[in-house]
Amino acid sequence: MTGPGTLDGSAAEPPAEVGSVRIRLDLGYDGTDFSGWAAQPGRRTVEGVLGEALGRVLRLPPSDVVLVVAGRTDAGVHAVGQVCHLDAPAAAWQALPGRSAGPPSYSLLRRLSGVLPGDVRVHAAAVVPAGFDARFSAVHRRYAYLVCDHPAGVPPLRRRDVLRHPRPPGRALQIEAMDAAAGRLVGLHDFAAFCRRRAGATTVRTLLEYRWARDPEGFAAARVVADAFCHSMVRALVGAVLAVGEGRRDLDWPARVLAAGRRAPEVDVVAPRGLTLCEVAYPPDAELAVRAEAARAVRRLPDR
Amino acid sequence: MTGPGTLDGSAAEPPAEVGSVRIRLDLGYDGTDFSGWAAQPGRRTVEGVLGEALGRVLRLPPSDVVLVVAGRTDAGVHAVGQVCHLDAPAAAWQALPGRSAGPPSYSLLRRLSGVLPGDVRVHAAAVVPAGFDARFSAVHRRYAYLVCDHPAGVPPLRRRDVLRHPRPPGRALQIEAMDAAAGRLVGLHDFAAFCRRRAGATTVRTLLEYRWARDPEGFAAARVVADAFCHSMVRALVGAVLAVGEGRRDLDWPARVLAAGRRAPEVDVVAPRGLTLCEVAYPPDAELAVRAEAARAVRRLPDR
Repeated sequence: MTGPGTLDGSAAEPPAEVGSVRIRLDLGYDGTDFSGWAAQPGRRTVEGVLGEALGRVLRLPPSDVVLVVAGRTDAGVHAVGQVCHLDAPAAAWQALPGRSAGPPSYSLLRRLSGVLPGDVRVHAAAVVPAGFDARFSAVHRRYAYLVCDHPAGVPPLRRRDVLRHPRPPGRALQIEAMDAAAGRLVGLHDFAAFCRRRAGATTVRTLLEYRWARDPEGFAAARVVADAFCHSMVRALVGAVLAVGEGRRDLDWPARVLAAGRRAPEVDVVAPRGLTLCEVAYPPDAELAVRAEAARAVRRLPDR
Repeated sequence: MTGPGTLDGSAAEPPAEVGSVRIRLDLGYDGTDFSGWAAQPGRRTVEGVLGEALGRVLRLPPSDVVLVVAGRTDAGVHAVGQVCHLDAPAAAWQALPGRSAGPPSYSLLRRLSGVLPGDVRVHAAAVVPAGFDARFSAVHRRYAYLVCDHPAGVPPLRRRDVLRHPRPPGRALQIEAMDAAAGRLVGLHDFAAFCRRRAGATTVRTLLEYRWARDPEGFAAARVVADAFCHSMVRALVGAVLAVGEGRRDLDWPARVLAAGRRAPEVDVVAPRGLTLCEVAYPPDAELAVRAEAARAVRRLPDR
């Protein structure tokens, strides 16, 4: 659990401004039983559940709780390091401790933990400079994708966040080939081949890191870092490289698909179950506003 | 996933004997939705669910599937390294591959994975010498207990196997004190203070290892190894040491409780949620029968 680290009670909180404060929340969720992040009428979404909980705890009407998120995850996708922000009346923040001891950030965490269901957890809260924008200030997002290729299937305690992809004995996924194929996709490219197209949105992204390795539990684990991701991009990148790991495609195939520059129907978009948003990175406070302006100028549609 | 390692398809399987074969199964389960290991009428138990699946796959009547298990876990307790054995007609074992390729062990895993629910998984199967007894041949059992003392609660993806034990900021569990207190309990002792008493059963056990440390995810993690455990023993050992970690008891208190030699009502038996059976260790094949005889002579009631 990383975050702005105000939980020890000693870190200085910025003085609350007159009017409103911007609050950064670091959170995780088990995406299994959510229809993704974004609020949708009649669906259980992370934004909906969290917004309602914040309204109760901060005593704000629902319409006043507006969340801006770093990564709008799809249905079934998990998070351990999601970040969002909201603006709230300074008075609501300052009133949080009530008669109990400790800073408002601790009161907020404690109260949210009593109101939120077990599959969403806010693990850090802090007042941040007004120039902080959870979406546009982010410099990169890191995702993990976990695959279990054991012939017997996924160990029961990990069945919610690991893809079941059984392979016969002696034919485990070839992880070195996967890592090599993935490495050839890194860089500044038009990722149209791996993105669901949206009118008016660029599919140019910088893939900073894409690696495959066996993790300590023996799962095939992808580490994927980019400035931002288009819709379904991580899951298409994983699907393309899985075909290499199975020996169905050669090592250069994903790079050839990328170079072709258009949505490739032969690339499987793997299931959301194995995907987790691990981390969103931000620049130092002084550079926040500059970064946000630059990101806004480049992109127009929601990032993931 | 450890086990007898017959999954690569190349390891020699002992020749099936005429009559019956003894089959060792290595398995894991998410204990959340089970009423423990042991079959009980009208309850969903691991033994019940696994026995039924084996009956279907081996085409045996339910009464012919008799499972002997290394650790009879309680309701809500998990396993990643549970071991059990059963005796089956050699013909049923040999018929497993049918017209498909591969050894019977692989066919058994594959078929079980299609029949078992997602919260139980058999990850290794092998024919073992008749002297092997999952319960009495075991030389030690290893359990883990995980506690999350973060003020916000347990990360959502770990809420099924980690105890929620929130602590205020600046008052995290004192892990070094817990480790020191735990170390004083190691050795050959009468663990009556930490066991639910059963008529006719000894509570003398050898606690081989009892350590506490922060794991990579920041959880307080206990590692507990003994030749065998009495009922509720691990959870009482954890409860006693948690009181030290919170500063409610001094470092020598658990050892004093142990020395008093009788069930101590002031020791909390912690919830099963955080407990996982990780490993059961066996001697080399040649020593199996000797070990089983020795264990039978000492203990009379079911081990955990």
